[in-house]
Amino acid sequence: MKRFIKILLFVFFFSLQAQATEWQALPGTAPAPADNPTTAARVELGKMLFMDPRFSSTGTISCNSCHNLMEGGDDSRRVSMGVHGKTGGRNAPTVWNAAFHSVQFWDGRAALLEDQAKGPITNPVEMGMKDEQAAMDRIIKITGYKPFFDKAFGKNSITIDNVAKAIAAFERTLITANSPFDKYVKGNKKAMNKQQLRGMKKFVSTGCTSCHSGAAFNGPQKKLGRGFYVTFPTFDNKYVSQYKLNDDKGREEVTGKIADRGLFRIPTLLNITDTAPYFHNGSVNDLAEAVRVMAKSQLNHELLDTDVNDIVAFLGALSGEYPKIIMPRLPSTSGSSIIVEY
Amino acid sequence: MKRFIKILLFVFFFSLQAQATEWQALPGTAPAPADNPTTAARVELGKMLFMDPRFSSTGTISCNSCHNLMEGGDDSRRVSMGVHGKTGGRNAPTVWNAAFHSVQFWDGRAALLEDQAKGPITNPVEMGMKDEQAAMDRIIKITGYKPFFDKAFGKNSITIDNVAKAIAAFERTLITANSPFDKYVKGNKKAMNKQQLRGMKKFVSTGCTSCHSGAAFNGPQKKLGRGFYVTFPTFDNKYVSQYKLNDDKGREEVTGKIADRGLFRIPTLLNITDTAPYFHNGSVNDLAEAVRVMAKSQLNHELLDTDVNDIVAFLGALSGEYPKIIMPRLPSTSGSSIIVEY
Repeated sequence: MKRFIKILLFVFFFSLQAQATEWQALPGTAPAPADNPTTAARVELGKMLFMDPRFSSTGTISCNSCHNLMEGGDDSRRVSMGVHGKTGGRNAPTVWNAAFHSVQFWDGRAALLEDQAKGPITNPVEMGMKDEQAAMDRIIKITGYKPFFDKAFGKNSITIDNVAKAIAAFERTLITANSPFDKYVKGNKKAMNKQQLRGMKKFVSTGCTSCHSGAAFNGPQKKLGRGFYVTFPTFDNKYVSQYKLNDDKGREEVTGKIADRGLFRIPTLLNITDTAPYFHNGSVNDLAEAVRVMAKSQLNHELLDTDVNDIVAFLGALSGEYPKIIMPRLPSTSGSSIIVEY
Repeated sequence: MKRFIKILLFVFFFSLQAQATEWQALPGTAPAPADNPTTAARVELGKMLFMDPRFSSTGTISCNSCHNLMEGGDDSRRVSMGVHGKTGGRNAPTVWNAAFHSVQFWDGRAALLEDQAKGPITNPVEMGMKDEQAAMDRIIKITGYKPFFDKAFGKNSITIDNVAKAIAAFERTLITANSPFDKYVKGNKKAMNKQQLRGMKKFVSTGCTSCHSGAAFNGPQKKLGRGFYVTFPTFDNKYVSQYKLNDDKGREEVTGKIADRGLFRIPTLLNITDTAPYFHNGSVNDLAEAVRVMAKSQLNHELLDTDVNDIVAFLGALSGEYPKIIMPRLPSTSGSSIIVEY
């Protein structure tokens, strides 16, 4: 009897949760930390720094190389390719709507976009600079950057922290609102087609919303800097070896705790049709297969192909409008190059 | 007496030429071949193709990687870096105002921009595609490109020739008019400062205009497809070994004729302060040194430092206005990636 009541209670709370799925449209602006307001001057400088490959050792890799704003904010690759053709171990997360993540990187090792921005500069398989000072030396040599720093942060402000702040401020403007889903949530009931609406229901009934909730479909909302992590994969199945899903230690790499093995941040699902291949290791090339693998590995649920197709159709409704971006002019080094590594 | 007359005649014609230096402002439009008018639809498609890295084997190298429109239309590197960090033998020429060159590449091996555009795709150290068909297979898989080809070239028009035509059409819009020099030539006598005006005179008196003439300072104007070539270096001197100026066989690589050894196309001098490092092998990092080397190697003239500085100041007046470019949206591959080489 006691067990029966327990099950009843579980069913009751589960159905409450399902009913309580509160769909939210993506906001037009992103939260910013108190010490880095998203000012026009910081955004402008940040855009330049984001696009400038001259802070990589070879002069070939910018933030945009792996987080291409002309594509889905990533690079179409399983894992990214940095200086000298070197490759890393994880798939580049999209920079679009990254501002709505409460922690950064797959393992949440950076609290804020400001912290994240510094990582790739000195990563030997990404931008490959010897140290942060070497990157700053390059920026200082490009004298045309000075007035932009002055305007954004005041005099004598060319520091690595301000580089990171400017890039983060720019990234907070990379928002793709007004997806068919957003329009639907705001009241336009024709914004999604029938298959997308079927997919939306199946997305809930399958249990996807237990992790992929909120306006960015990236988990219960936390304060900036606090992460929400889930073990991936949770259930063992044929896909685990097929796609090597257990090879990455996830958050254990950050904390050193075995309890954190395989824990990952919940990635956003916005614009997901533009960000193949999928997962932390980019091992799954196809979105339908990714849906199948997730349902089996996280919810122990084997989806019918029709369900998979409906959910994929729904995910297609999460692609919003990419804002128009004018290419920045990167300041010249006036008759000499600062790239000395070949 | 005969010899004296000869010298007199030479001086007479030389002074005629010097007096006849007809300065020309850069036109706002570039010439196009009859079979590829610069239509808006072709330019739009060409911009997308120019910026899209997915036609390189690794998905990392676009035209813009080495001809960066946010910089001087090049890459700040001695020689460019293609797929897998591979490097070539020559410095990337600027794509800005490339439409005013009557032949393409340092050795003129492509007649038109249309011919040039195909080269890097299958070059193993640039975009590294196995063959043109492999690149076309990628473009066809990105179904979002089809309507743009339809609009630009009509139905069933996704061919390598039309890819090249679209890129060339876009490149013909990459013009930087209204430099201080252009404004001066058009009548604004205050557009250049005193040092620049001194440099302009020294540019003529030193003999630079014997090659660097015309609105783009890239030699006597020829019909599209016909080149004007000069031996570099012409005079032996200490710089030749210092900067390895004789290591490249130049146009001999194209024709196989020893008579063409060391022949190169005259590069434009527009925006030259934005295109360091210099020469076909990128061996000279500094513009002042490049001027010194050119005067000695081509005109057997040792310039005073003051003359060098004045000429460099004049060259700075050749930087025009870069047009604003909105980043293109690159069509998505809708839930699967086409990059299969890692």
